[in-house]
Amino acid sequence: MIKVAILGFGTVGSGVVEVMTKNADKIARNAANEIQLKYILDVRDFPGNPYAPLLVKDFSVIENDPEVQVVVETIGGTGVAYDFTKRCLLAGKNVVTSNKELVASHGCELLSIARRQNLNYLFEASVGGGIPIIRPISQCLAANEIYEVYGILNGTTNYILTQMIKIGLPFETALRQAQEMGYAEQDPTADIEGHDACRKICILASLSFGRHIYPDQVPTQGIRDLDLIDVEYAKSMGCKIKLLGRAVHLPDGKAACYVAPHLVEAGSLLWNVEDVFNGIMVRGNAIGDVMFYGAGAGKLPTASAVVADVIDCAKHLSARKYLDWEEGGAQSSADPAQLVSRWYARVPKSVDAAALFGDVKCLSTENARPDETAFITTQGVSGTEISEKLKAANAKAAFRIL
Amino acid sequence: MIKVAILGFGTVGSGVVEVMTKNADKIARNAANEIQLKYILDVRDFPGNPYAPLLVKDFSVIENDPEVQVVVETIGGTGVAYDFTKRCLLAGKNVVTSNKELVASHGCELLSIARRQNLNYLFEASVGGGIPIIRPISQCLAANEIYEVYGILNGTTNYILTQMIKIGLPFETALRQAQEMGYAEQDPTADIEGHDACRKICILASLSFGRHIYPDQVPTQGIRDLDLIDVEYAKSMGCKIKLLGRAVHLPDGKAACYVAPHLVEAGSLLWNVEDVFNGIMVRGNAIGDVMFYGAGAGKLPTASAVVADVIDCAKHLSARKYLDWEEGGAQSSADPAQLVSRWYARVPKSVDAAALFGDVKCLSTENARPDETAFITTQGVSGTEISEKLKAANAKAAFRIL
Repeated sequence: MIKVAILGFGTVGSGVVEVMTKNADKIARNAANEIQLKYILDVRDFPGNPYAPLLVKDFSVIENDPEVQVVVETIGGTGVAYDFTKRCLLAGKNVVTSNKELVASHGCELLSIARRQNLNYLFEASVGGGIPIIRPISQCLAANEIYEVYGILNGTTNYILTQMIKIGLPFETALRQAQEMGYAEQDPTADIEGHDACRKICILASLSFGRHIYPDQVPTQGIRDLDLIDVEYAKSMGCKIKLLGRAVHLPDGKAACYVAPHLVEAGSLLWNVEDVFNGIMVRGNAIGDVMFYGAGAGKLPTASAVVADVIDCAKHLSARKYLDWEEGGAQSSADPAQLVSRWYARVPKSVDAAALFGDVKCLSTENARPDETAFITTQGVSGTEISEKLKAANAKAAFRIL
Repeated sequence: MIKVAILGFGTVGSGVVEVMTKNADKIARNAANEIQLKYILDVRDFPGNPYAPLLVKDFSVIENDPEVQVVVETIGGTGVAYDFTKRCLLAGKNVVTSNKELVASHGCELLSIARRQNLNYLFEASVGGGIPIIRPISQCLAANEIYEVYGILNGTTNYILTQMIKIGLPFETALRQAQEMGYAEQDPTADIEGHDACRKICILASLSFGRHIYPDQVPTQGIRDLDLIDVEYAKSMGCKIKLLGRAVHLPDGKAACYVAPHLVEAGSLLWNVEDVFNGIMVRGNAIGDVMFYGAGAGKLPTASAVVADVIDCAKHLSARKYLDWEEGGAQSSADPAQLVSRWYARVPKSVDAAALFGDVKCLSTENARPDETAFITTQGVSGTEISEKLKAANAKAAFRIL
């Protein structure tokens, strides 16, 4: 019998309880052991809730109970979640989390404490919600050198973009709709500014390339300023605008990571990743391209990934999963502006696009603005090179094409 | 130091050697141990091959060497591969394989020997080549009851279908081209008759639902008789014809499995799975739909999955992976004809399709044959019901729509 405590009885925490209850048989069979919930930590009261008897308000009850072998942290953020996670590991308890912000900011440190304590710190649910991605990268692709990871990592912005593309809603209207549907929070900053995708690409890059990449090393552009006209131009060439996180392993061993809107072509598998779904591509030297797709958020999908990690802890109480990476720093990160792509841009008509950007293909749509030229470059250009020219040309928008 | 033997120095076997050599650093780091190849078993000679000194012709050398802890079986088939696998397990050696035929036919027995011996029998490479799918289902989705698994499981037929759809090649020409490209074997029966996809859906169903499903329990239809006119009709309604394997977990606990061509609609992620690629969808009660995509065959992708299993064995020499299922039989399998879908069919014009099949939508294409009606049913109909009617109507073709 494995005793578990959950820290935080919010959306994910209560989802974990729901999955553990609903699929108890399957879970016990897979864990080859019964998993029993002993405590739920939350500062709030939940009168009438069937799990109310398990509620505690004092973390030290859990910390000091040697029976608790696995702790699920679903508090979120880097405040008490960080403190409690450390204390759980130091008290000899395995920790499972869905907290991407904490893993992106302190993953390396927490993994190294877990290593010294011979414990597991698992976070399958931190990227892609319920989509299996952390374990496939760390185990199934263990025989590959990974070149690149990229994808649609944030369901909220993908939902907003899907509405803009399919129905032609302007950004603000699509955002309001996402909020009404419960897909966007009342303060949607972390999603629409790209911070959430940034944390996830940090985790994927750290795991794939072996050195910690921190959020402040990842230039991040969201979708708040996205103009419907760019959506239309993209459509006119069979593309969709998608917010991608991308991490490229350069030949010198450094990682170039960023988050930005891209034009995605119709042949790409990401093209059909719509609404709140996520799609993550991984490129390895033996496997080639693999993609993982599914619900990137939501109570039950995320909870199912958390519970899978709890099962894994239960099966490996005496054997550590080799989920690990080394400390990073300036020497392990490179400026993504050096990456070469084809580009889409929109500049004032007074600019001679061909003279400035080389061979370009001009685009048109029904609602084209008379004072602007929209075009794509036919050759790859680095971000550094195009930025200077775009600045000189007073560009309205510019996105990489993938 | 973990010593490994490879049985069979063919495409996959030599790929395993290539990946182990090329990515030795990454592999040692992930295995937290050096992995050394000690023997390669093959009846052939490979003069001048740098690995010739490791070649042995007598299996008992490997069987009787206590230093060998992991054996890679890439012989294929159910003859000596079955015998050698059993003897390796009985001799206390972990076994890793890419042999789908053996796992589909004898997986339950071999897993139970491994269990009794406290050893691992791993086969990530048996389905989807290098695509992570076995471990994600058994571990990452361990907290889910899985309802359904389906997908494009055979790269050869998907390549042929892609050529038929994109270029309008007839089946025989597309097959010859696939053979010239090395994507189809000289005897392509196992691929084009659907046997290969059948073995893979057996493995996926056994793993997902917990009881062994054998190939003879899976009605299997290939693509040999596929007519270009059906490809055209499919196109006219925005669909593509894809060969799918499908396994549905019925409410009574039985599995209904089959392999057949389907019409796949444009919104489906499988729609963009082209050429030799595979795409596998898994539907769970907590996670919803997840898809796994990548190179479903090929030397290095398949080898990379084999080597990942070797690494996993090396890390779990004293801890079994809980990859297991129970024996199956007539009581665990159900007739897939009871599954309800919308259908596409083509019948003689003399048949009153609407009278026979209920509300239908008639299709047209440029090359429509004057004596035929092609239509889709607008409502779901079971396979049992439609089969009788199609027989009565002397149907030319009928496929489910997914």
